[in-house]
Amino acid sequence: MKIIELKETFTASNDRDAEELRAYLKEKSVILFNLMSAPGSGKTTLLSRVITDLKEKVKIAVMEADIASAVDAERIEALGAQAIQVHTDGMCHMDAGMTREGLLSMDLDRTDIVFLENVGNLICPAEYDTGAVRNIMILSVPEGDDKPLKYPLMFRESDALVITKTDALPYFNFDMEKAMERVRRLNPAIRIFPVSAKKGDGMAAFEEWLLEETKHFVV
Amino acid sequence: MKIIELKETFTASNDRDAEELRAYLKEKSVILFNLMSAPGSGKTTLLSRVITDLKEKVKIAVMEADIASAVDAERIEALGAQAIQVHTDGMCHMDAGMTREGLLSMDLDRTDIVFLENVGNLICPAEYDTGAVRNIMILSVPEGDDKPLKYPLMFRESDALVITKTDALPYFNFDMEKAMERVRRLNPAIRIFPVSAKKGDGMAAFEEWLLEETKHFVV
Repeated sequence: MKIIELKETFTASNDRDAEELRAYLKEKSVILFNLMSAPGSGKTTLLSRVITDLKEKVKIAVMEADIASAVDAERIEALGAQAIQVHTDGMCHMDAGMTREGLLSMDLDRTDIVFLENVGNLICPAEYDTGAVRNIMILSVPEGDDKPLKYPLMFRESDALVITKTDALPYFNFDMEKAMERVRRLNPAIRIFPVSAKKGDGMAAFEEWLLEETKHFVV
Repeated sequence: MKIIELKETFTASNDRDAEELRAYLKEKSVILFNLMSAPGSGKTTLLSRVITDLKEKVKIAVMEADIASAVDAERIEALGAQAIQVHTDGMCHMDAGMTREGLLSMDLDRTDIVFLENVGNLICPAEYDTGAVRNIMILSVPEGDDKPLKYPLMFRESDALVITKTDALPYFNFDMEKAMERVRRLNPAIRIFPVSAKKGDGMAAFEEWLLEETKHFVV
């Protein structure tokens, strides 16, 4: 298990770094998805399911970004996928330079898709372009349907929203229609995928979207 | 509903500001509790229950800190309690100067307890002393028992941990003993209160602790 201790990269333009990183990834035929969410929304469980379901079709690697520990990267590695853990030196986001440093320590020649599991946080990660081709936000049912009202920027910056833990809908006050309406008011173009990674419901549609985006970028 | 737009306060020493704020609150006979958690952990639901249960015993006011919206302050105000909403200008934490500015717009003469509902975030709020007398962290069952491994600082900085949504324990993989053991390894002195604010389980012990701490500080 590789653990990389990152420092913030102070460059003139994170946006330019992000564009350069996307160009580099295009050359390498690797697509980078940036996953953002609150702590405990089920990012690693979602990724575990995706890796298991798609392992015959694409080669997936995961970069886990956290303040401390390597528990998520260990879970991914146990599935047989390439995983690295990066520590953000206390910072609550990843920028393009940090993401690039993590990617350089991965074996991209045997990779089609890299998922960056960003730091669990609904605020800071939305403010930095990581160089990802697509931003995916995860919102779990127990967090509540009011999150688009309180954290609008992340919903605006995301290309897709995965609403996880739908198997818990009977036990929580979560109005799916109201949630979707609030999200679409912020971001009319966003794709929304309600899923239960535990039971498998809704996973096929999300995985199909991932494969389509990959094919579109990599070819 | 008061909504206050705050700017970060750049002062030489946040710690000194925090000490001064505590002295001021002591003089006013008001105790300030700082509530920190991830988004969607149930802080406002917990506070609603506490306000309802304790309204005959103490006068409670709430300062809601968010990036956007006033949904939480509206929920508190609907219970008949004093509530203000502060917006943090995109920042993911409250410092002592910002907290002081919010407090100055409240009627402290008719208040015994102020709860600061900090920005939903497990990283930044733990790094700033707000001037609170006690820090309370909320961890909800659906977030998982691995959070102490990933966000150790907030568990270390808290005087009490409330584990919320225990009514959801049957539906999630949350090992209560393992969670408590991980927390106590970081912070042996922390008080831990497992509760269901929805059903009321465990609330009495938490509320008794709140009243004891208040009595101790205010007298």
